[in-house]
Amino acid sequence: MKLATLRTTNGTVAVRIDGDTVVEITGVPDVGALLAQAGWRDVAESAAGTTYALDSIEPKQWAPVVPKPGKMLCAGLNYRNHILEMGRELPEYPTLFAKYPEALIGAFDDIELPAVSDQVDWEGELAVIIGAPARRVSEEEASASIAGYAVLNDVTMRDYQYRTLQWLQGKTFENTTPFGPFLVTADEWTPGPVMRTVVDGDIVQETSTGDLVFTSEKLISYISDILTLNPGDVIATGTPGGVGHARKPARYLQDGSTLVTEIEGLGSQSNRAKTV
Amino acid sequence: MKLATLRTTNGTVAVRIDGDTVVEITGVPDVGALLAQAGWRDVAESAAGTTYALDSIEPKQWAPVVPKPGKMLCAGLNYRNHILEMGRELPEYPTLFAKYPEALIGAFDDIELPAVSDQVDWEGELAVIIGAPARRVSEEEASASIAGYAVLNDVTMRDYQYRTLQWLQGKTFENTTPFGPFLVTADEWTPGPVMRTVVDGDIVQETSTGDLVFTSEKLISYISDILTLNPGDVIATGTPGGVGHARKPARYLQDGSTLVTEIEGLGSQSNRAKTV
Repeated sequence: MKLATLRTTNGTVAVRIDGDTVVEITGVPDVGALLAQAGWRDVAESAAGTTYALDSIEPKQWAPVVPKPGKMLCAGLNYRNHILEMGRELPEYPTLFAKYPEALIGAFDDIELPAVSDQVDWEGELAVIIGAPARRVSEEEASASIAGYAVLNDVTMRDYQYRTLQWLQGKTFENTTPFGPFLVTADEWTPGPVMRTVVDGDIVQETSTGDLVFTSEKLISYISDILTLNPGDVIATGTPGGVGHARKPARYLQDGSTLVTEIEGLGSQSNRAKTV
Repeated sequence: MKLATLRTTNGTVAVRIDGDTVVEITGVPDVGALLAQAGWRDVAESAAGTTYALDSIEPKQWAPVVPKPGKMLCAGLNYRNHILEMGRELPEYPTLFAKYPEALIGAFDDIELPAVSDQVDWEGELAVIIGAPARRVSEEEASASIAGYAVLNDVTMRDYQYRTLQWLQGKTFENTTPFGPFLVTADEWTPGPVMRTVVDGDIVQETSTGDLVFTSEKLISYISDILTLNPGDVIATGTPGGVGHARKPARYLQDGSTLVTEIEGLGSQSNRAKTV
């Protein structure tokens, strides 16, 4: 099942996408509110609200697939090949940091380039979205807590990220993190397919989403020792090699740059960077 | 004005404390919901709901003063004397990390000692609570965004904090961060008075809350360049010297330890650490 949050003239609404048709899940304002219902799968499957042709949807109607997650955790240093090619050892524990919902934008919204940063970089990522509470669960139990997966780009202000030892301030600039357009449920998609980040037509990241040191289940199990993961919470699973900051010379998003992030089977984002 | 969130048999309710009397702000479930109203000062001042004697309130009726902040940011390395006595230079930028609302407990609730950590440490802190949106504000403008101040203890699992370079995972264990009991509005309290942390009767931290490198206004101004601070958001302003991890030998909270955190004029917390 493929779900999304659509902006309409009456606010947002959760929708199910059946092939070329978009079906409103009437009365449910977004995918986060949907997942908060214990029987969300049945609610989504049986929904039969207003329908639209998929190609009639304007790009900027796609809201962040979960517009206001209760919490977002991000993993760093999680792609095996990238760690090994850097000559590092595989880590024993996941590196985790936060992002606030204010950072999120829709899959075709503009990325706001803030005047205070001139090192705005890309980080294509697979995001896993929680569909049932998880507290002190094993890796095996964790899969039952996964609603599904989505594309996310953890756009990062490198100058702010490295101003201090803690990365948070470079990771959560307002209106910078495209998320969606779709959540594909875990029964229809599993990690493995290729993720690709493309900047102004150049492929800058391209890797298998199956190459994670800490899989979604491992991350959920680990985090659930710390606190409860709740429906609608999001874990961004980390980015592979190919970010702009590591290039010689470094490359960053500029006013007018186009950032495309896609994962086979999950969909594609395309965002224009725009100075504000 | 002194505000709090009280647990009752009908859920929580925001209250105003007038001397020895607690007055319900009828229909407002907590201080976060109160602050979300543009005219919150008038609403709180004019409230005339059910009253109670302050000494009739059970300790565990005090909920976290803002139970579910939209976001919590924490500053590290922010007490001038402590930085200088460590031989470090004063930082140019604030170190910022996150904490999730799941970490919060009331001012007299038990601190849950998780089985997975045996290095649970204290960090007495002054918290500033946002009362009006702040986006790209100057230091001077920032004061208008402050609702008030409260006591918070940023209880930290040192083993988890230092497992990786990012501190988040040691900072956000569920049911570990006492917050409150009161919010004292900024017209009645300004930073300066002494903060004291006491573990099993031993004073372990004692310092002036006026000794911050980055004041509340500086932190708000800085963060507001990154994203919008909204009513009910919380900034924990950092801890002074005297944490258990830095002692020789190190000292941590044990099952049955009592942690008292108090700031003159803002009130006092007392929390028992309890293995779960």
